[in-house]
Amino acid sequence: MGGGIKQIAILGSTGSIGQQTLEVVHALSDRFCVVGLGAGRNVKLLARQVGEFQPKLVSFRKDDCAGLPIENYQLLPLEEMAIHPEVDVVVVATSGKAGLAPTLAAIRAGKQIALANKEVLVMAGEVIMAEAKQYGVEIAPIDSEHSAIWQCLRGEHKEKVARLILTASGGPFLRYPMEQLAAITPEQALKHPTWHMGEKVTIDSATLMNKGMEIIEAHWLFDLPLQHINVLIHPESIVHSLVEFADGSVKAQLSPPDMRLPIQYALSYPERLFNPQLPRVDWGRLTSLNFEPPDWTRFPCLRLAMEAGEKGGTYPAVLCAADEVAVGLFLSYRIGFLDIARLVEDALEHHQSISYPSLEEVLAADAWAREYAENWRPG
Amino acid sequence: MGGGIKQIAILGSTGSIGQQTLEVVHALSDRFCVVGLGAGRNVKLLARQVGEFQPKLVSFRKDDCAGLPIENYQLLPLEEMAIHPEVDVVVVATSGKAGLAPTLAAIRAGKQIALANKEVLVMAGEVIMAEAKQYGVEIAPIDSEHSAIWQCLRGEHKEKVARLILTASGGPFLRYPMEQLAAITPEQALKHPTWHMGEKVTIDSATLMNKGMEIIEAHWLFDLPLQHINVLIHPESIVHSLVEFADGSVKAQLSPPDMRLPIQYALSYPERLFNPQLPRVDWGRLTSLNFEPPDWTRFPCLRLAMEAGEKGGTYPAVLCAADEVAVGLFLSYRIGFLDIARLVEDALEHHQSISYPSLEEVLAADAWAREYAENWRPG
Repeated sequence: MGGGIKQIAILGSTGSIGQQTLEVVHALSDRFCVVGLGAGRNVKLLARQVGEFQPKLVSFRKDDCAGLPIENYQLLPLEEMAIHPEVDVVVVATSGKAGLAPTLAAIRAGKQIALANKEVLVMAGEVIMAEAKQYGVEIAPIDSEHSAIWQCLRGEHKEKVARLILTASGGPFLRYPMEQLAAITPEQALKHPTWHMGEKVTIDSATLMNKGMEIIEAHWLFDLPLQHINVLIHPESIVHSLVEFADGSVKAQLSPPDMRLPIQYALSYPERLFNPQLPRVDWGRLTSLNFEPPDWTRFPCLRLAMEAGEKGGTYPAVLCAADEVAVGLFLSYRIGFLDIARLVEDALEHHQSISYPSLEEVLAADAWAREYAENWRPG
Repeated sequence: MGGGIKQIAILGSTGSIGQQTLEVVHALSDRFCVVGLGAGRNVKLLARQVGEFQPKLVSFRKDDCAGLPIENYQLLPLEEMAIHPEVDVVVVATSGKAGLAPTLAAIRAGKQIALANKEVLVMAGEVIMAEAKQYGVEIAPIDSEHSAIWQCLRGEHKEKVARLILTASGGPFLRYPMEQLAAITPEQALKHPTWHMGEKVTIDSATLMNKGMEIIEAHWLFDLPLQHINVLIHPESIVHSLVEFADGSVKAQLSPPDMRLPIQYALSYPERLFNPQLPRVDWGRLTSLNFEPPDWTRFPCLRLAMEAGEKGGTYPAVLCAADEVAVGLFLSYRIGFLDIARLVEDALEHHQSISYPSLEEVLAADAWAREYAENWRPG
């Protein structure tokens, strides 16, 4: 542990969450220290991060390491970094299925987990939560919505939760009629009104697939039936989610839309730390918080995720994989915005699901869905 | 304790909070039982309550007891009821200074306290909190704002609180210009837009004196400097208050404006109980929550309370007593709406305060202020 300083390994350090995690560590260097950095593609940025944070452990594809500075670190695969004895907390900030195996390894090694990679729970929630329970590991969510719920549940009893309400900004196309949605370009979809995030999650926010996945994630994290998890559109992204209790009392967590707060909370929990770099709600300027129910017709991804979550088995893995391919096809101008939902729906319809899947079966469903999606053509 | 059923004594059972406490007890009769009912004036209603709830203890003025039914109960003073061995929880729902002595007695007898009578803490917060600490008694607030804060603090560390934000509906005259405020009649002032309450607190809500007193109350209950307690106007009365923590994260408590929830929570704490009679937020119809800073010029009572709280000593007792008399004068058409603040300000200016007052000194200041106020004439 090293004198109360938490030793952190970041899986996916060059992504949006990874970079913001480093900002938090930098601001609170008396409490946190980076021992491991792992990335998948951006060798230039990883090299800069290695130079600045001097981690003992680095993970990158062996064949491309020429770009990294020659420092005194050990090069190793993500999964080995995640279980290294010097690591206290593993921040899983990878995207897609990349986080699955290292997260499972870290849980089995009893590491504290700070989870930003939502596909880990959407794809394999059953396996992950069972292992976390077995190894006595608490999973700290980094998603702002799940962090909000986690904070609202502090000091409360889980069995007294009546309902979770996940808020959603609604994305840039909240008011677009169906015809306009069909014509949306990647450039338009990448402009999110309140959050600055990676490309994949920005498109998922525009289709509301992101919120659909978060319902499944919340279902696993907080052990609640999907029917007790609702979505409310809240364009200001100040109220990050709400919890309704048995007596009708509701708690909400609020803060300016900035991922560094949920990141920091996942690292510092159960403590709360003052960080001068984090923005605060300006009470003199807070005027209005707006809410409305989501439109399930114009945003079918919400329904697809709900259905995949209800059916369970390998359906959620197919949802994730098909969506990832579909978003890629949309970003490269090969399918339209509304085709994302169509592709995912077709993949789910054609999938033969397996109940209570193992990790291998989840990965096989993922591979099947990717192939199906790559070969899909708009009707 | 009697098999997990909490034995409750209600001081002030015929007032608005007292009646709603009885509704909660009635709805949750497998958890709560009334052993004591005490009232000051309304013998007709008290008689009905005694008939329905069959308490073992009743408190009323001896000379007027002819109106009470002849049942098998013991007639005794409020202070004796508050310390009776069969009582687990004392609900202090009296108004003005009537709750002071019984609350202090109940604390010294180690009773659980559910406090609705805000003057108890505003007038004698120092004495009350010191005794509560000494006797290991936690004071459960029944005010919706303080209940909200108390709920938001569950599981959190007090020293990590950066700020409390008390919400205020703003009352019926939120948008009235100064000239119109001067002409307000008691009938207008008694029509509160969101809350149904007793007359005194309804007028205090219209002048914002109620919110000012709540700042002082929160200061004592949560042991925070007055400067760290802010007020935000929130006309919908859905968000009952908010807590900002050291890391910038904010928690809020929401529910429809209905006092039965904070009453029930104060009785059931640390449990949360399902009560089919309590209203719930209708998520499909929640559209907008609005906030704005209060106007300290048009509502000077807020400033007067803040100043009295800052100065301490017997000033807050004078604030309460002068306000109580002023509200009475306003309700009987003897002074105008804006005179309420003028009277209170004059009383505070003419008062010779005592630092660290005893209960007797607090009561002497109260008596002085009442006399001053009764003889006050509008300039």
